Amino acid sequence: MGQNNYDVIGKSLPRLDGEEKVTGRARYVGDLKFQNMLVGKLLHSPHAHARILDIDTSEAEKLPGVKAVITHKDVPSTKYGQSPARWDETIFCIDKVRFYGDKVAAVAAVDEETAHEALKLIKVDYEVLPAVFDPFEALEEGAPQIFEEYPGNVNTEIHQHFGDVDKAFKEAYHVRTDHFYGQRTYHSPLEPHVAIAYWEGDKVTLYSSTQTVHYLQRHISNVFDMPMGNVRVLKTYVGGGFGGKVDATGLDFSAVALSKITGRPVKMFFDRKEMFYNNRGRHAQFMKLTTGVTKEGKILGVHADFVMDGGAYTGLGVASAYYAGALLTVLYDFDNYKFDMIRAVTNLPGSGAQRGHGQPQPRFAFESHLDHIAEDLGIDPIDIRLINAREPGTVTINDFKVDSYGLKEALEKAREISGWDDKKGKLPRGRGIGVGNGGFVSGAGYPCYRTDLPQAIAIIRVNEDGTNAILYTGSVEIGQGSDTVLCQMAAEAMGYRYEDMEIVAADTDLSTHDFGAYASRQTLMAGWAVKFAGEEIREKILKTAAEMMGYVPEQLDVRQGKVFLKAHPEESLTFAEVARTYFVKNGALIGRGSYTPPKLGGTFKGAAVGTSPAYSAATQIAEVEIDEETGEITVHEAWDVHDCGYVINPALLHGQVHGAFYMGMGESIWEEVLFDENGDVANGNLAEYRMPTALDMPPMASELVDTVDPNAPWGVKEVGEGATTPTMGCLANAIYDAMGVRIEGLPLTYEKVWRAMKEKREKEKEESKE
Amino acid sequence: MGQNNYDVIGKSLPRLDGEEKVTGRARYVGDLKFQNMLVGKLLHSPHAHARILDIDTSEAEKLPGVKAVITHKDVPSTKYGQSPARWDETIFCIDKVRFYGDKVAAVAAVDEETAHEALKLIKVDYEVLPAVFDPFEALEEGAPQIFEEYPGNVNTEIHQHFGDVDKAFKEAYHVRTDHFYGQRTYHSPLEPHVAIAYWEGDKVTLYSSTQTVHYLQRHISNVFDMPMGNVRVLKTYVGGGFGGKVDATGLDFSAVALSKITGRPVKMFFDRKEMFYNNRGRHAQFMKLTTGVTKEGKILGVHADFVMDGGAYTGLGVASAYYAGALLTVLYDFDNYKFDMIRAVTNLPGSGAQRGHGQPQPRFAFESHLDHIAEDLGIDPIDIRLINAREPGTVTINDFKVDSYGLKEALEKAREISGWDDKKGKLPRGRGIGVGNGGFVSGAGYPCYRTDLPQAIAIIRVNEDGTNAILYTGSVEIGQGSDTVLCQMAAEAMGYRYEDMEIVAADTDLSTHDFGAYASRQTLMAGWAVKFAGEEIREKILKTAAEMMGYVPEQLDVRQGKVFLKAHPEESLTFAEVARTYFVKNGALIGRGSYTPPKLGGTFKGAAVGTSPAYSAATQIAEVEIDEETGEITVHEAWDVHDCGYVINPALLHGQVHGAFYMGMGESIWEEVLFDENGDVANGNLAEYRMPTALDMPPMASELVDTVDPNAPWGVKEVGEGATTPTMGCLANAIYDAMGVRIEGLPLTYEKVWRAMKEKREKEKEESKE
Repeated sequence: MGQNNYDVIGKSLPRLDGEEKVTGRARYVGDLKFQNMLVGKLLHSPHAHARILDIDTSEAEKLPGVKAVITHKDVPSTKYGQSPARWDETIFCIDKVRFYGDKVAAVAAVDEETAHEALKLIKVDYEVLPAVFDPFEALEEGAPQIFEEYPGNVNTEIHQHFGDVDKAFKEAYHVRTDHFYGQRTYHSPLEPHVAIAYWEGDKVTLYSSTQTVHYLQRHISNVFDMPMGNVRVLKTYVGGGFGGKVDATGLDFSAVALSKITGRPVKMFFDRKEMFYNNRGRHAQFMKLTTGVTKEGKILGVHADFVMDGGAYTGLGVASAYYAGALLTVLYDFDNYKFDMIRAVTNLPGSGAQRGHGQPQPRFAFESHLDHIAEDLGIDPIDIRLINAREPGTVTINDFKVDSYGLKEALEKAREISGWDDKKGKLPRGRGIGVGNGGFVSGAGYPCYRTDLPQAIAIIRVNEDGTNAILYTGSVEIGQGSDTVLCQMAAEAMGYRYEDMEIVAADTDLSTHDFGAYASRQTLMAGWAVKFAGEEIREKILKTAAEMMGYVPEQLDVRQGKVFLKAHPEESLTFAEVARTYFVKNGALIGRGSYTPPKLGGTFKGAAVGTSPAYSAATQIAEVEIDEETGEITVHEAWDVHDCGYVINPALLHGQVHGAFYMGMGESIWEEVLFDENGDVANGNLAEYRMPTALDMPPMASELVDTVDPNAPWGVKEVGEGATTPTMGCLANAIYDAMGVRIEGLPLTYEKVWRAMKEKREKEKEESKE
Repeated sequence: MGQNNYDVIGKSLPRLDGEEKVTGRARYVGDLKFQNMLVGKLLHSPHAHARILDIDTSEAEKLPGVKAVITHKDVPSTKYGQSPARWDETIFCIDKVRFYGDKVAAVAAVDEETAHEALKLIKVDYEVLPAVFDPFEALEEGAPQIFEEYPGNVNTEIHQHFGDVDKAFKEAYHVRTDHFYGQRTYHSPLEPHVAIAYWEGDKVTLYSSTQTVHYLQRHISNVFDMPMGNVRVLKTYVGGGFGGKVDATGLDFSAVALSKITGRPVKMFFDRKEMFYNNRGRHAQFMKLTTGVTKEGKILGVHADFVMDGGAYTGLGVASAYYAGALLTVLYDFDNYKFDMIRAVTNLPGSGAQRGHGQPQPRFAFESHLDHIAEDLGIDPIDIRLINAREPGTVTINDFKVDSYGLKEALEKAREISGWDDKKGKLPRGRGIGVGNGGFVSGAGYPCYRTDLPQAIAIIRVNEDGTNAILYTGSVEIGQGSDTVLCQMAAEAMGYRYEDMEIVAADTDLSTHDFGAYASRQTLMAGWAVKFAGEEIREKILKTAAEMMGYVPEQLDVRQGKVFLKAHPEESLTFAEVARTYFVKNGALIGRGSYTPPKLGGTFKGAAVGTSPAYSAATQIAEVEIDEETGEITVHEAWDVHDCGYVINPALLHGQVHGAFYMGMGESIWEEVLFDENGDVANGNLAEYRMPTALDMPPMASELVDTVDPNAPWGVKEVGEGATTPTMGCLANAIYDAMGVRIEGLPLTYEKVWRAMKEKREKEKEESKE
């Protein structure tokens, strides 16, 4: 379908928030000031595992300027979390601390300096316990037990078997097993978490840099045992989320508690080190993959056997564990699949969701593994992927319904634009090219609470002279551009001008219910609600115009604020004129939209997590250069071809692809959260946690495959996360192509490449001697 | 109808804004700060009437810290005003200035001091013209002409004749003529006007201390030639309006213009003296009344012959002129009425609407006049009022339909509770008792623009777990309590709890259309819209609950958040449970309400202004004491009996009555805006403009007459303005009762009483000599 059928969507219109952000006028939560506002800070545990014997806050309370010092004794002990069966966290630790940085107490004081002073005066008597930092050690008999509710430190255990993998392996021409490792990473949003809470009467208002105001509202109302209506959660601008701002943080709960006790607004914020304690990034993951193929490379069966290091607490970790295995079935079509996963708890900070949620590492593993298999069989890497790529209109072995799917087209286009056939195996020594595939869901079928609720609600209201309209939505702009995209969709559905749209989003009081920004759900799910709301207004406008002009609505069309006779477009009225007439006759001109996904996919446990109305697909190809002296990896050029369905705003779309590749590249080559012997984060700052800069970014082509998913408004699909998933495998494969060395553990690092080359040289030397 | 049939209305529930205001947390527009905000100030004319020959802003522009200096050359010259045919004002004076204080230029600077400095550097070359400060002089031939469009300085001329007054006078037993004068007064709100404007792209946001955001939006959009959708007008808290914040001020336009030019937010505010220039208070009014009565005191005909001093510019002055005469027919039922009015323009600041809008002075005149007639006939003042008081279900001679009307009951109750029969004419020398009647409209039938629009729109949205609901309304809380009252109405209509209501009001972007706070319209008009919106939600809740419980909706009731079987109330669901179910099935739970008054009253010009769905009535009685040495007037005690229909919040209602009496008392005895020989305000500060304090306020009883108006939601009527209208006459009559002196010109003042007593003594002495 051509993009030209539409007036407002399919166009790179300027971001709603662009000018405010570029000129520095945009106010983030941290920029807000309230009268009499206090500053709160958290006291973090200095041990990875210890029993709390006593907490003495008396000295801290005496410090002038300190308005409250609180511990678990002063706040509700109700547990919270995301997955309903794994609520294992309290506002402050009660019996013991479980990681270096765990939340022990909080203070509110007149300024930040005083708050820090007060933290130093809190005396905590700990009985240090043996700690465990490795998931395999944690799973051994006799290991320290971290939670009573997780015997043997097993937080989540998954064993799924579809078809008959053993039989498939027996029938296979070739069966291969490889081991991979994905490291622990951290999102590094520009804006660290900030929360400001203030109570008025029995109601609390919480400004938070969150990805989901409605989840957070629900957590606060649940822990503090209040009706949701007494909790208002809202945000201003959010400086990046990437999955780390889905979980409620200690700031949110502590700020609410401190404000309740002091009767004053309380602002709390994490410094960068605290972000590493609390901002739950990607799990470390050990991945064993066994695959059986025919001689021609057709996959017959796959066994994924994974162990994840959950760190302390669960948060979104159960979902991470399911995602890791569930989505492996989507890209390549095979009939036999076994997935084993243990998510162990350890005495490290908890892990959670990070862009691609559970997926990028298994994709790294599988795309590396598949290249080995291709090499074993003498098949070109792109060919083996084409042989196995899923067709649209199919259902995965684990019951995911995949209606539109452009993976083959993506592979072919990427092959073409990258010049693959002229480069693969033909580049000079030190240069290599690699391919990786990926993709993601466009929203998850089941939210973490009230699974009966619609996923998204939207209301649009046109003002009384028809010259502007407000879209009310609970969806959350976190920098990705959702406010802009939803306003484009609203204008398109209404037949209105984008310039005349305004938005009230992500305020649990003012806007409507929506689960928020996670699982790449908003363009599709909030999009449906917005489309329905816009269409209701369009219908009312056409009906009113028909009465005014003496026609039937079917004879009319409305586009970009103009209602006209299809047969004679010069016979027209402005949308505003018609809206005014509607207003006089009927009062407020509003449209309502609500979206509940159809029952999707399988009923077994785990389908719930992965099931989506639509799936994206992506191929990435990259060319790298390796310095043989140092192992330095330079990414020379990259190509991404994405099937993300119909594109509402191409500029924003390509921005997402570039950002996703950038993030995936950082995780591929440099980024890793490291710990010292006490379990404290060793590189918890942006100097030592090595993220790429703009200078590391290669020239990149972002191209599209044109599909229109029938389950999505205008056929849209996700883009925010899927483009992160092919990168790691793509770069590992390119390094292999360049130097013949396979790095199986992320990050690939210059050192690992240098060591692998050295080992390879020595081995070759050894072999040449024999 | 008993107040007990309702759960939420009829109760003195706490104000929504009470805690914020009492604790000082409430933020008024003047409390707001924006980044890079400039301060703007206006340059006022130092002449009452002068031609502008040249304006030189060059020196002012050079002053460091000055960001813009603007005159009429820099802004649109589109005229604005309220009455469509009388738009006579521009942002800045173009050809000439018309009063001392007229708007000549404005500056924006980094701070207030610099702005004031810059004003001094603007050089204006004036040719001083003869000025006229008296309306009769202005109407004389050869008087200076102030506006080209008002030849002879006649701004508005009204001549209406219903029935045959001359015939009535011929048939009358007694015909009497009296002359009265009402002085110019000023509202003195606690909060002077403030406006903050800031532009973003092609849109401007204007925070203003306004009584009507939608009028102001319309003025700005019209003058700056922009779609209304590009103008957002909103307020925070407003510290009193009393009619003075209906007109757009120079601040509003200048702030918008200065922000457009500087690209920065601009805050502007009036000091108290500037408020006297710009805050259009009550007109000075010369009133000649002639009335013919039967021997028994029945009024046969009335001729009201009035002249008003409009000052410069019209604003709401045409409405003031019509109100002065139109509503004289409502209280007393007579068949012949003639009303002549000339509103002259003079070189004084413009006059406009002040609590009771045009009415209090004519009521002062008529109630004084009626007491003279009663004395002439030997009838008790209350008796003559009872003889003439209108019955409910009648239509006035000028075609106002008066359905509920409790004036007789008010008179009787006031007579009883004040002990009138034991006091009238029987109090010791120096003490006196007087009576006055009054009343007002409950909204005017026709707004100043888009008369085809509904008067009020409301939307109510319940959140997804049913525990709070937001009322969106364009009505304007200015301290009178409308937010509270409308939330009570919403909760009552929905069957919900007041505590769970929240409100988004008076923001042209976020809330719904409503003409705002004037003409005592909101409780009735916004109330209807709110009631309809609430009832739509109630209906949806009952339908959903019926499905859940297995009944039909008619078997169920919903009250205070509980849905129950009428026959067995213990069989119940919570509103929240039902709302959650509705949400799952249908999405957003919202209700819409819209109110357009039925075609009311007559079609002649003037009926438009006065016509209302319902009319209040009030009787006030007061006891005063006069110091014979000094003329000092002490109000000892007061009684008010008000027919304001059904009462939503008694505490707020009685607060309005006390406030209205207080304000009426101030205007009766002390307050008057004075001018020096140049036409400059001579007492433009709160030390010399003598308002009463709490110490001047007598003990006061506020009682009610129980009526239920069929044209109003739950039978409500106005209270905010009506209770101001009887006070002046009541106090004048009490003074007459005390000392036998009639003060015919307001304010009554100690000096006038002293002089009148002296004159009376001398005359009596003279007579006793003869």
